[in-house]
Amino acid sequence: MEENDESEIIEHHDDEEMEKRRNHAHSFLESVTSSEKDGHSSTQSSHRLLAYSDALIAIIATVMILPVAHTKFQNNEELKESIQSLLTTKVSVYLMTFLIVTVAWAAHVRLFQVISHTDDTLALLNLACMMLITFLPYTFSLMATFPDNVVGMVFFCACVIVIGLIQSSIVLYGFRHPFLLNDHIQMSENPAYYKQHILKVIMKVPIMCIFAIIFSFIFFQLSYVILAIVIFLPYISQSLKWIRNKAIGGQVEDDADHVLFYTYHPSEPLSKERVEAFTDGVYAIVATLLILDICEDNVPNPSVVNKEFNGSLIAALQDYGPEYLAYFGSFATVGLLWFVHHSLFLYVTKATRLMGLFNTFSLAFVGGLPLAYQLTNEFPRGSRNELEAVQISCVIIFFAGLFQLAIWIVALFNERETLHPYVRYGGQEHTFMLAKLSLYPCVALGTFLLTCVLSQFSAPIFHIMEIGVPFAFLLLRLLVRVALTLLKWLFGLVRPDVDRILVVEDDPQLPINDIVA
Amino acid sequence: MEENDESEIIEHHDDEEMEKRRNHAHSFLESVTSSEKDGHSSTQSSHRLLAYSDALIAIIATVMILPVAHTKFQNNEELKESIQSLLTTKVSVYLMTFLIVTVAWAAHVRLFQVISHTDDTLALLNLACMMLITFLPYTFSLMATFPDNVVGMVFFCACVIVIGLIQSSIVLYGFRHPFLLNDHIQMSENPAYYKQHILKVIMKVPIMCIFAIIFSFIFFQLSYVILAIVIFLPYISQSLKWIRNKAIGGQVEDDADHVLFYTYHPSEPLSKERVEAFTDGVYAIVATLLILDICEDNVPNPSVVNKEFNGSLIAALQDYGPEYLAYFGSFATVGLLWFVHHSLFLYVTKATRLMGLFNTFSLAFVGGLPLAYQLTNEFPRGSRNELEAVQISCVIIFFAGLFQLAIWIVALFNERETLHPYVRYGGQEHTFMLAKLSLYPCVALGTFLLTCVLSQFSAPIFHIMEIGVPFAFLLLRLLVRVALTLLKWLFGLVRPDVDRILVVEDDPQLPINDIVA
Repeated sequence: MEENDESEIIEHHDDEEMEKRRNHAHSFLESVTSSEKDGHSSTQSSHRLLAYSDALIAIIATVMILPVAHTKFQNNEELKESIQSLLTTKVSVYLMTFLIVTVAWAAHVRLFQVISHTDDTLALLNLACMMLITFLPYTFSLMATFPDNVVGMVFFCACVIVIGLIQSSIVLYGFRHPFLLNDHIQMSENPAYYKQHILKVIMKVPIMCIFAIIFSFIFFQLSYVILAIVIFLPYISQSLKWIRNKAIGGQVEDDADHVLFYTYHPSEPLSKERVEAFTDGVYAIVATLLILDICEDNVPNPSVVNKEFNGSLIAALQDYGPEYLAYFGSFATVGLLWFVHHSLFLYVTKATRLMGLFNTFSLAFVGGLPLAYQLTNEFPRGSRNELEAVQISCVIIFFAGLFQLAIWIVALFNERETLHPYVRYGGQEHTFMLAKLSLYPCVALGTFLLTCVLSQFSAPIFHIMEIGVPFAFLLLRLLVRVALTLLKWLFGLVRPDVDRILVVEDDPQLPINDIVA
Repeated sequence: MEENDESEIIEHHDDEEMEKRRNHAHSFLESVTSSEKDGHSSTQSSHRLLAYSDALIAIIATVMILPVAHTKFQNNEELKESIQSLLTTKVSVYLMTFLIVTVAWAAHVRLFQVISHTDDTLALLNLACMMLITFLPYTFSLMATFPDNVVGMVFFCACVIVIGLIQSSIVLYGFRHPFLLNDHIQMSENPAYYKQHILKVIMKVPIMCIFAIIFSFIFFQLSYVILAIVIFLPYISQSLKWIRNKAIGGQVEDDADHVLFYTYHPSEPLSKERVEAFTDGVYAIVATLLILDICEDNVPNPSVVNKEFNGSLIAALQDYGPEYLAYFGSFATVGLLWFVHHSLFLYVTKATRLMGLFNTFSLAFVGGLPLAYQLTNEFPRGSRNELEAVQISCVIIFFAGLFQLAIWIVALFNERETLHPYVRYGGQEHTFMLAKLSLYPCVALGTFLLTCVLSQFSAPIFHIMEIGVPFAFLLLRLLVRVALTLLKWLFGLVRPDVDRILVVEDDPQLPINDIVA
């Protein structure tokens, strides 16, 4: 058979040569080469499998915003009360679901940092796992709607247990076929130790869920406590550890602790590629949430147009005006927040867990944006409802932007490991990155304060902000340079030593002329 | 400044060394290295920008299935009539929108095969372009709902014109900053020729749309003809060319013709990576379509549960049973079709335009699956409606699978250019790939025929099929081997020369034991 293969290769030698010259054969070569080497013809690079999983999980994470977004407000009722009743159930369900799905996603990322190649069986097992993860939000919202009923809890825990079992079988399958594992474990002297450790970590959650089910029949409150521990312990412990490390000052590398929580690989943080893929998925679905509704609901009925508007389609469409405005506004804001994230992650070399946590928080707020924008355009001009809707939008934008800024600030604490030199302290892109990241929080804060003062003009102020921000981004390099020159000139008169920091920005190579031209 | 940079590099030399050893720094290095070389600090790899665009366009392409999926059927009315009324408007609007968005996507792919790097300005321009592309389905459905009204046509054409203008400015910006262009054009002696040619191709569509707007005021029917030409000409001309080439037999490389339609690069087909990303996006959104509805609508109201079901949540949830079944059924089918696509594209080295066309057709049918599955479980057992719903599901699955098979068959005609040796005629994975690709069409055809004969048992037959197919995929390697051995044994008795073809499959390296174990 080996010879048979070789003769085939010689036969098609010319073609192979041709193929290799093509640019786009690259990913293909990557995906098949390793399997050819080992002789395992069914082994595949897991890249596309993971991209598909990320897209699925991103959609599912944001799905619980739909019941919130589709809540209809009566114009005559006070928005504040509606918002408060929403806050108690739907918004908290949305936020909790988002975090739960993110935890499931993080576990999936860890798992496939161990399993670096897939074959057909693993791909099918992964699809089964995905099917159950996509069902999690529904079981959770059942649980939230019927907090006193055992059924919701049992469904939710059963889902988590089955997911755990499937993930364990993926691990077992992987360790039976070591060529699927990553190099680090493949080369290690004691893979059995890894196997045991990983299985222990994965099965911890399902086992706690079994206890939660048992307690739900005996002592109900306790099962909620167990679930809360399961979901938030990794986050809390991580935050505490980070704060402790900062307080002590020393970089205590506590591997033993690392090993205890999810991190199968002590040295390896969340895969940056997958953080990006998941983030892209969330931004993509959030950006299009409003157009989904518009396409479904805002095509007027021909008979209605004939009856009510004398056949004038334009008159009928004018009714929907605010919704188009909401769509374009939210698309632009989500798109620009994505753009800021994209710019930041170009210079991030490693995404630590805390950075991942802040990214999750930022995404959770981004998910609320379409809702906020829809509210902003729904109420009569100058009403108190409108003012509050505008302010809620500003708060959401502020926090979404602030957590993005927080990612960078956390990264700066460990800049040697996490950031490219360009955006570190004194790097040539440092100030520009700061401007990019702080533009939205500053603008949102400014708009919020302005609407407090000039509450009658809240909507016009908000719309001016919507229109202005894209141009601000387009001209940001110019603005930063102008601001720096001004600062330099001002401070230069007082303290000439500021020059040293600012001169880094004065790179004539900076393609500022690209933007001005 | 150059020196300043160098001293910085020496300063952080240790860190750089460390960073280079990390696995996940790869994508980062790729994205920044080239910019460091040229000294354009703002130049970026366009990978993530394109992935995000693909996700957005994939969601938008499938969005018009929502109005179809949310059409409510009355149980007492005949399904056939409902389906017919649907077919005339909503389904055709869905299919047309899907094709239109796909054309816009293809244009976007071509454009960014010319522009291989981005900077901030290009990213923002691209976002503006995306915003208008996501608005296309809505304007088209306006046009379809009010075919006699000028407004829909004008809106649609205006969208297309603005998209064209933005794309032209992207090209102009790219040619002003040649380091953003791909190597081929950067190295070419006459980039001005390329620029002119690309602009001509891009602006052709907007210019035709301007004519369509003008004619819509004078002679209405003509403007539709113009639009039809704009949308379908590339497809039709490509199909005709391929058929002509096959009929003549010779591989006539008509570059002149290639240059005329969208292909900026005569030799370069659609980027395989982007075909995959777009396909993943469509499969991901289609797979989760039903759970979006379930999360929103199927959480029972506590007061209703107390009143109607005496507080029994399980009794209330049993009402939704068919919808859960529909969800799991459609998720599994969409997931497995994705799996087949994934398996095929692992061995595809180049996606020609005809392969891309068949991929689009396959995806358009996949988009209808959730609807079909929902219908299947909506009608009373044994009714004529149920039978027809089951048969419609079978037809959709059949065509979705058949077009996937068609991709491979088309690829086999040019196998030297488009396929990896493993899946060419006589390759060791050839038969297995054939089995994978033909499993769904065969099963769907079989189910359809069975339901015709045993029409009373249509639902049970369909459910057995749903449950059986995933296992068939899991055991496919085993099944193929058994079938081949049987065939060999049967034919071996008659014609011993068949052995030569079949022996290729008998590779002991085939990891069949992986699956059986």
